[in-house]
Amino acid sequence: MARLDGRTFKDLRKINIVPDFNKYAEGSCLIELGNTKVICTASVENSVPPFLRNTGTGWVTAEYGMIPRSCKMRIPRLDKSGGRSTEIQRLIGRSLRTVVEMRVLGERTIWIDADVIQADGGTRTASITGSFIALVKALDKVKKDGVISKIPVSDYVAATSVGVIDGIPVLDLTYDEDSAAEVDMNIVMTGNAEFIEVQGTAERKPFSQDRMNELLALAKSGISKLVDIQRSLLRDILIF
Amino acid sequence: MARLDGRTFKDLRKINIVPDFNKYAEGSCLIELGNTKVICTASVENSVPPFLRNTGTGWVTAEYGMIPRSCKMRIPRLDKSGGRSTEIQRLIGRSLRTVVEMRVLGERTIWIDADVIQADGGTRTASITGSFIALVKALDKVKKDGVISKIPVSDYVAATSVGVIDGIPVLDLTYDEDSAAEVDMNIVMTGNAEFIEVQGTAERKPFSQDRMNELLALAKSGISKLVDIQRSLLRDILIF
Amino acid sequence: MARLDGRTFKDLRKINIVPDFNKYAEGSCLIELGNTKVICTASVENSVPPFLRNTGTGWVTAEYGMIPRSCKMRIPRLDKSGGRSTEIQRLIGRSLRTVVEMRVLGERTIWIDADVIQADGGTRTASITGSFIALVKALDKVKKDGVISKIPVSDYVAATSVGVIDGIPVLDLTYDEDSAAEVDMNIVMTGNAEFIEVQGTAERKPFSQDRMNELLALAKSGISKLVDIQRSLLRDILIF
Amino acid sequence: MARLDGRTFKDLRKINIVPDFNKYAEGSCLIELGNTKVICTASVENSVPPFLRNTGTGWVTAEYGMIPRSCKMRIPRLDKSGGRSTEIQRLIGRSLRTVVEMRVLGERTIWIDADVIQADGGTRTASITGSFIALVKALDKVKKDGVISKIPVSDYVAATSVGVIDGIPVLDLTYDEDSAAEVDMNIVMTGNAEFIEVQGTAERKPFSQDRMNELLALAKSGISKLVDIQRSLLRDILIF
Amino acid sequence: MARLDGRTFKDLRKINIVPDFNKYAEGSCLIELGNTKVICTASVENSVPPFLRNTGTGWVTAEYGMIPRSCKMRIPRLDKSGGRSTEIQRLIGRSLRTVVEMRVLGERTIWIDADVIQADGGTRTASITGSFIALVKALDKVKKDGVISKIPVSDYVAATSVGVIDGIPVLDLTYDEDSAAEVDMNIVMTGNAEFIEVQGTAERKPFSQDRMNELLALAKSGISKLVDIQRSLLRDILIF
Amino acid sequence: MARLDGRTFKDLRKINIVPDFNKYAEGSCLIELGNTKVICTASVENSVPPFLRNTGTGWVTAEYGMIPRSCKMRIPRLDKSGGRSTEIQRLIGRSLRTVVEMRVLGERTIWIDADVIQADGGTRTASITGSFIALVKALDKVKKDGVISKIPVSDYVAATSVGVIDGIPVLDLTYDEDSAAEVDMNIVMTGNAEFIEVQGTAERKPFSQDRMNELLALAKSGISKLVDIQRSLLRDILIF
Repeated sequence: MARLDGRTFKDLRKINIVPDFNKYAEGSCLIELGNTKVICTASVENSVPPFLRNTGTGWVTAEYGMIPRSCKMRIPRLDKSGGRSTEIQRLIGRSLRTVVEMRVLGERTIWIDADVIQADGGTRTASITGSFIALVKALDKVKKDGVISKIPVSDYVAATSVGVIDGIPVLDLTYDEDSAAEVDMNIVMTGNAEFIEVQGTAERKPFSQDRMNELLALAKSGISKLVDIQRSLLRDILIF
Repeated sequence: MARLDGRTFKDLRKINIVPDFNKYAEGSCLIELGNTKVICTASVENSVPPFLRNTGTGWVTAEYGMIPRSCKMRIPRLDKSGGRSTEIQRLIGRSLRTVVEMRVLGERTIWIDADVIQADGGTRTASITGSFIALVKALDKVKKDGVISKIPVSDYVAATSVGVIDGIPVLDLTYDEDSAAEVDMNIVMTGNAEFIEVQGTAERKPFSQDRMNELLALAKSGISKLVDIQRSLLRDILIF
Repeated sequence: MARLDGRTFKDLRKINIVPDFNKYAEGSCLIELGNTKVICTASVENSVPPFLRNTGTGWVTAEYGMIPRSCKMRIPRLDKSGGRSTEIQRLIGRSLRTVVEMRVLGERTIWIDADVIQADGGTRTASITGSFIALVKALDKVKKDGVISKIPVSDYVAATSVGVIDGIPVLDLTYDEDSAAEVDMNIVMTGNAEFIEVQGTAERKPFSQDRMNELLALAKSGISKLVDIQRSLLRDILIF
Repeated sequence: MARLDGRTFKDLRKINIVPDFNKYAEGSCLIELGNTKVICTASVENSVPPFLRNTGTGWVTAEYGMIPRSCKMRIPRLDKSGGRSTEIQRLIGRSLRTVVEMRVLGERTIWIDADVIQADGGTRTASITGSFIALVKALDKVKKDGVISKIPVSDYVAATSVGVIDGIPVLDLTYDEDSAAEVDMNIVMTGNAEFIEVQGTAERKPFSQDRMNELLALAKSGISKLVDIQRSLLRDILIF
Repeated sequence: MARLDGRTFKDLRKINIVPDFNKYAEGSCLIELGNTKVICTASVENSVPPFLRNTGTGWVTAEYGMIPRSCKMRIPRLDKSGGRSTEIQRLIGRSLRTVVEMRVLGERTIWIDADVIQADGGTRTASITGSFIALVKALDKVKKDGVISKIPVSDYVAATSVGVIDGIPVLDLTYDEDSAAEVDMNIVMTGNAEFIEVQGTAERKPFSQDRMNELLALAKSGISKLVDIQRSLLRDILIF
Repeated sequence: MARLDGRTFKDLRKINIVPDFNKYAEGSCLIELGNTKVICTASVENSVPPFLRNTGTGWVTAEYGMIPRSCKMRIPRLDKSGGRSTEIQRLIGRSLRTVVEMRVLGERTIWIDADVIQADGGTRTASITGSFIALVKALDKVKKDGVISKIPVSDYVAATSVGVIDGIPVLDLTYDEDSAAEVDMNIVMTGNAEFIEVQGTAERKPFSQDRMNELLALAKSGISKLVDIQRSLLRDILIF
């Protein structure tokens, strides 16, 4: 049985990543995951937040936004009710920080911006997968400028969503699928298949340990494919 | 080996719950979990948000706050940077909604307020465990007023935190323990031992599937004890 | 003739003060005045506002808040219409500053927080009476830490409300009494029976000089009893 | 002994009131009290706040502002720290409401705006004295339009400040005098010499009952003169 | 003599317009003008602002934004200092409204969003030229849905910038050229070569009437080419 | 044929300028243009914005506001929708900066405040004409204080509006005229009859080059008269 867009329940959507999409940012890409499109940029700033000053330690932080008509229904430009955006940008920043060696980075901040220009589900996971590429591109530029001696990243980071629809575990949900899901999970993992973040929510009914294990396995298979794509795009920069 | 407060790694902190703590709210309690103290109230409003009008369906929503000197360091009263508060109140609302039968509730909204008067770690999980009691108390009042014919709740809801400190899985973390944890997980479960929400974060290094399974088992044992306490406090109201 | 709660018109409500209520603050108490309950904390900060820098002079400032369901009707959490809160916190700060010797305090700021957890009239006067205790407790800690050589306080400060209901002067009004009052007055006095602040408002009709004198005398008798309670709680710290 | 501007301690400053100063407002005046200059307008709106709808009762509310360079030091245009403005506009509204017969006014709102174009102390009391004139002018227009049958005002309202400087009671303080005062009091009274509002603050040291009585008598003499001026300006409109 | 990018002073930059760029909006395009890239969408809403209700008349309004790293220097995401954005969105809305027949449109609002994803000068003029296409596309959809009987647009609208650099009039300035210009002008014209908006600013020194006439002629030649492109893209929809 | 107020289409309104209107500001005036009245002040601050620090260069910036009842309809005091105010204050600042020699001014900022106390059209142009006077007065004070050796202003600056009503070019529009205009133009010029800013908007229908030339000539004649008035008021300060 197939989904509306022809995929099986175990398939990711078609992925297209355009590195160096932005002319100004130190690192950037456009990531397209089906109809979901996100511009990810990484900007380098030669300072750190107050709590890190004079520690020799760097920082990675992220912001996330959607342009107003990225969605089916136009969203107001300055929507301040936006706990959702804050949650997502905290998640992106936290996920990337887990693999960055902050002492090697030194006292500089990498600002990640994930700007959704079209949204069809999975914008937060696409943002993480794309932002990792923008981050590494920016770090490569800093390295080429002679400021750091190695790329201070210890592993790949990619993310996907899984869910349960009509009792069936499903990978990489579109917006319509997400709206119909009983359970909804966003998973961030390393290239080494370890967990960085697991966020599972019972949308309609609580779920069992067995169900969770099925979903985690499905997510792992999808993330493995995403990391393969990252690896091929970054093969001249990262040596693992 | 024991912890600073004398507990083993598998123990919850001392719990004290004072139901009907507030004179005005339809339902309320004070929950004390060690040094963490939260006032939980449930207020009944005879209307619903616009998206539910004329659907015969109710709503449960939550707000979370900390008084400025609830913490070691005083926090500014109107801290708007507060993505953290938004995340927590969304979590509380989502967790409680999973077990409320909204059609039985009818077109009314239950406003949960979780106000932290002293914080020593675990404020979000204490808020969920206490808010469930305030919610049921308020629904009992509505039922006694003859407005609804049964308590529209399908199961208990309680929450706890688990983490990994120096490689050891630990239950119900204090603030200092939380700051030292490599992995940090908040788990919300039903009385029937199913998951409502799983939020696991690698604070310092990614974690494996096996490690996650250990942590989930530890959380389950703690939540089971919390539900026992809820059950004894609500035994005249809930029949399961 | 008696009031709804059994008091005569000249009685204060039952008072309960729990010093050191808060684990973290340098000074604190819970003050209960009938059903009105306020947590007062005093936090010490080793700096002063810009206008006092390099003057050798300290500062005392106050903030006041109500948790949303402290009242009969839930109040929105971030109520910005709140001129009332601003008025009250300015009053608390001004009242306490009148008795603090700022040069002895030196360049540090005492932040008072008065957080109302249940409100039944008189929250501003209870906040002043309780904040004085929190303030002295915090100053005692600073003195015990060897930072200052004496408690820089010249007198006690306590406050109460008086009003006119059906033509009769009444002491220490509950919320319902306050709503029915023709004249409403808040009085802050020293232990030495001098005025720090007099705020009298004709709610329904203007009042005469004679009526004001009656009300001031009633307030004086009530504040005298409040200062006696403060004196007994602080007798190991203050020597007057 | 005289003051810097030549007055005795018992004198008001020179007063100049220009009624109908504004071309658009239903009622208005410019009031000049020495160097303090305030534009007062009263605008009529044919609706009331939600809490008065369908009660047949009107409302009077006030807003107060200062243009940025009305003061010695320019104040930022959108100063939101402004508890002071809120306190003052609440005071203006409350004072005027005490003498307005709201049932005769009917379901309409009078918006008072007091805009300070130059400030030299006493802006709040000048605003009250001037706003009363704007209010009566606007009510007269509503009456002339045939909407109400009488001016729904029961008495005059005027205000002044008194203070203690170097131990001497002083009437109508300039900014410099106010800064030097030990005690500072704002008094609002009716034409009938009764109190509407008494706000007395010990700026430096607490004050006695006798001192308060002296100050109230001084204020009464000043307000009596202000009411005489109001009476002469409004003699064609008010018959008392 | 040529410019940095090889153009003569009288040339526009290379233009690329991708109609129907957005999957959800009723009308949209991506417009690329050299390195300046703007997503323009037109969203149809079946209501009008309050001042137009029950008039049978429609409305066109516009919002303009830049994603944070669209510029050389990252701009903060919620920059509220932003008078510039407000000016631009008012200009876009005003320009398009001049050619829309609001009575034919009926009581509906067209929301234009111009979101800059890369900025190299001329974002406001590119936004106008592109938004006209999005607007017509959206109106065509409304017409095809049978809601209106004709496209309620009376002429084409396009815009460009001109300036004076080192005394030489220049067409379609890049960011670096704009920074160096003595005079800076944005011109909006119709397909019929009439002016909708002229905004000329002396950045460094005032300019003469003759200079202005030269600049207007240069702008006219550029806009004529932009309208030719619009005409060829919309030839199946607009008949003029 | 004449206008409602008796003027011909080529006349300015009656002008009244009161220099030194404000007691505190370094420079000030009240400008009355018919019923439009604006208080203009110039405040001197001994610092510059961050981007000019250590450049030896000064700055001129402007803020514009309207008191709530300056208009026919009262406008809310803190209207944040206010793109209009921002546009106007940017225009005032830009216009004045064109004639100020910033190196002679040195590292200080002149803050212009234009506060409209009554509005009947032309507030932005009256603000520019009046602010120039306040600016020169403030610079004269700085010069008299010995801080600068000459008035760092290279020419006069004045502004007026022109428009087309029923096909006829009209000078200096009132509010009612402005509302009826087909084309609306604001022009800022120097004493030397060169353009500083030209802002022309087709309110109802696009306009031709010939029409624009007519309007510019009309504006030039009006501005010439305004500069004559400025010249006579400032003849002791400016020598050109």
